Amino acid sequence: MAHGSGGRLSHKLVQEIFQKHLGNEYLNQMNDATIVRGSGKLAVTTDSFVISPIFFRGGDIGKLSVCGTINDLAVSGAEPRYLTLGVILEEGFLLEELEILVKSIAETAQSAGVHIVCGDTKVVERGSADKIFINTTGIGWLEREVGPQYIQPGDYVLISGTIGDHGIAIMSEREGVEFETPVISDCAPLNHLIDQFYMPGVRCMRDPTRGGVGTTLNELARQAQVGILIEEEKLPQSEGVKGACGMLGLDSLYLANEGKLIAIVSLEVVNEVLKLMQMHPLGKDAAIIGRVTEAEPGLVLLETPLGGKRIVGMLEGEHLPRIC
Amino acid sequence: MAHGSGGRLSHKLVQEIFQKHLGNEYLNQMNDATIVRGSGKLAVTTDSFVISPIFFRGGDIGKLSVCGTINDLAVSGAEPRYLTLGVILEEGFLLEELEILVKSIAETAQSAGVHIVCGDTKVVERGSADKIFINTTGIGWLEREVGPQYIQPGDYVLISGTIGDHGIAIMSEREGVEFETPVISDCAPLNHLIDQFYMPGVRCMRDPTRGGVGTTLNELARQAQVGILIEEEKLPQSEGVKGACGMLGLDSLYLANEGKLIAIVSLEVVNEVLKLMQMHPLGKDAAIIGRVTEAEPGLVLLETPLGGKRIVGMLEGEHLPRIC
Repeated sequence: MAHGSGGRLSHKLVQEIFQKHLGNEYLNQMNDATIVRGSGKLAVTTDSFVISPIFFRGGDIGKLSVCGTINDLAVSGAEPRYLTLGVILEEGFLLEELEILVKSIAETAQSAGVHIVCGDTKVVERGSADKIFINTTGIGWLEREVGPQYIQPGDYVLISGTIGDHGIAIMSEREGVEFETPVISDCAPLNHLIDQFYMPGVRCMRDPTRGGVGTTLNELARQAQVGILIEEEKLPQSEGVKGACGMLGLDSLYLANEGKLIAIVSLEVVNEVLKLMQMHPLGKDAAIIGRVTEAEPGLVLLETPLGGKRIVGMLEGEHLPRIC
Repeated sequence: MAHGSGGRLSHKLVQEIFQKHLGNEYLNQMNDATIVRGSGKLAVTTDSFVISPIFFRGGDIGKLSVCGTINDLAVSGAEPRYLTLGVILEEGFLLEELEILVKSIAETAQSAGVHIVCGDTKVVERGSADKIFINTTGIGWLEREVGPQYIQPGDYVLISGTIGDHGIAIMSEREGVEFETPVISDCAPLNHLIDQFYMPGVRCMRDPTRGGVGTTLNELARQAQVGILIEEEKLPQSEGVKGACGMLGLDSLYLANEGKLIAIVSLEVVNEVLKLMQMHPLGKDAAIIGRVTEAEPGLVLLETPLGGKRIVGMLEGEHLPRIC
């Protein structure tokens, strides 16, 4: 408990675990605020991670907390540069586990080329938190003008890979359900994938996390005041997710993803963008899943293989708590 | 619970409580990341707030979460500009209470001239968090070159007012102890106070929060490799804090403050800085409490009224958990 008290033990914790794995010129400033350099337009985003369990197939809460915030910056058209790290620990949380998570944070940040610039740790008594919660705030330079305001009827909707993997991986981990084909979370930083395919004509990007592809497309349709028509059979799904959804009666359109993005792209560049996406390991299953229409502004429609159409609404109520 | 699920109810919560009180051009962007403008050197800081109780004499967790982060930026020489807001709610937390806190956040941010630029809310099941935890990350423009590296022997140590008020206020609230003179938390944003007194010759500033004045001075003595000698009878203390410390055997040097700063100032400007501080409502009890020495680098010494000296160490172990 004393590790979060602000005194000598706090210093020890910071030195021995956080500084050890994350130490860099920024954290070494050891001041109340860290000084970074920037100019022009900055993108800023924040996210708290409360996922349970904290270790899962394909990742852990540390990796997820870095990926989630990097991805929010990257899909906004920014180059992710700096992350802050706010940790809330439940008293009794094993320092060994904390160290594994901090290493995971360090490795993920390094692989994505972002710097952890400052941090804070608080400890609460047993029963007042569940193991560990992590907040990351990200700052990046805005480099690309993308956003729902650029979406136009006639544009195409791309997804960078299979959908629902994170949601099913967590569900299976949490409920102790094993599916025939094990599902691995897709948790990954998407900034390098975007560097690979981005070109003018990419109008808007989003990462469909909580609420899934269905909810994200609804947000875009409303913000851009366009219709979005997607084709059910074009949605990439892993065998494991397909099986799990069939068995549990779930709709993969509402399952969380943590390493996928939706891109809305003009007719002129759609094939080139798709090809570039597919050349990157994180985009190998990328597909065109639909298009933007003038009709039905604000609505998302799903076309079934038999030609029927149904409205894809926003996620209602609770699907799966603590998925990120 | 569904309010944190990322679907329709999440949108409703964001619209009806957060957007209602905090809505501004930044939050209205409603994107994954918010775009702000900046240039040159940025100061960045992050802090999680887990204080219990969440309402206390002089403030609440909302006000505190804004003040704490603003103050970290301001004492670092930055003009606080942008705050992000990460909220973790325990299922069942009253929306009425949430709204009071969000209003408090909005008012405090406005009074300090900072903008809440993005936010995130997660809900966890009952028993997995204690009511509400708030993370704020702050971004500001660096305007003043201050820091422990500028501290020199011969400088003076100033405190902007009475010490220990926040610590005693929380302790009294939590334990249900009433002292003869009620103690009110000093929770306040310090950026305007600093604007009032800052001038070249102010070498370094810090806000002595968790760990108190004693721990903060130790950090400064170590970082600057100087000695710091403070005079016990010069330490401003409210009657309530004096009484409570006497009764409970506490040392006010280790009690948390949330609206006070330590300034290390050159001989040439110390009297002018003190006068300017005292002209501001938040600095009316400001005092010179000691000086920087060449002797005993890394150590903080306290001189008693009778001329004796004792070493003031860093806070050891746990003093008071969840004080911020």
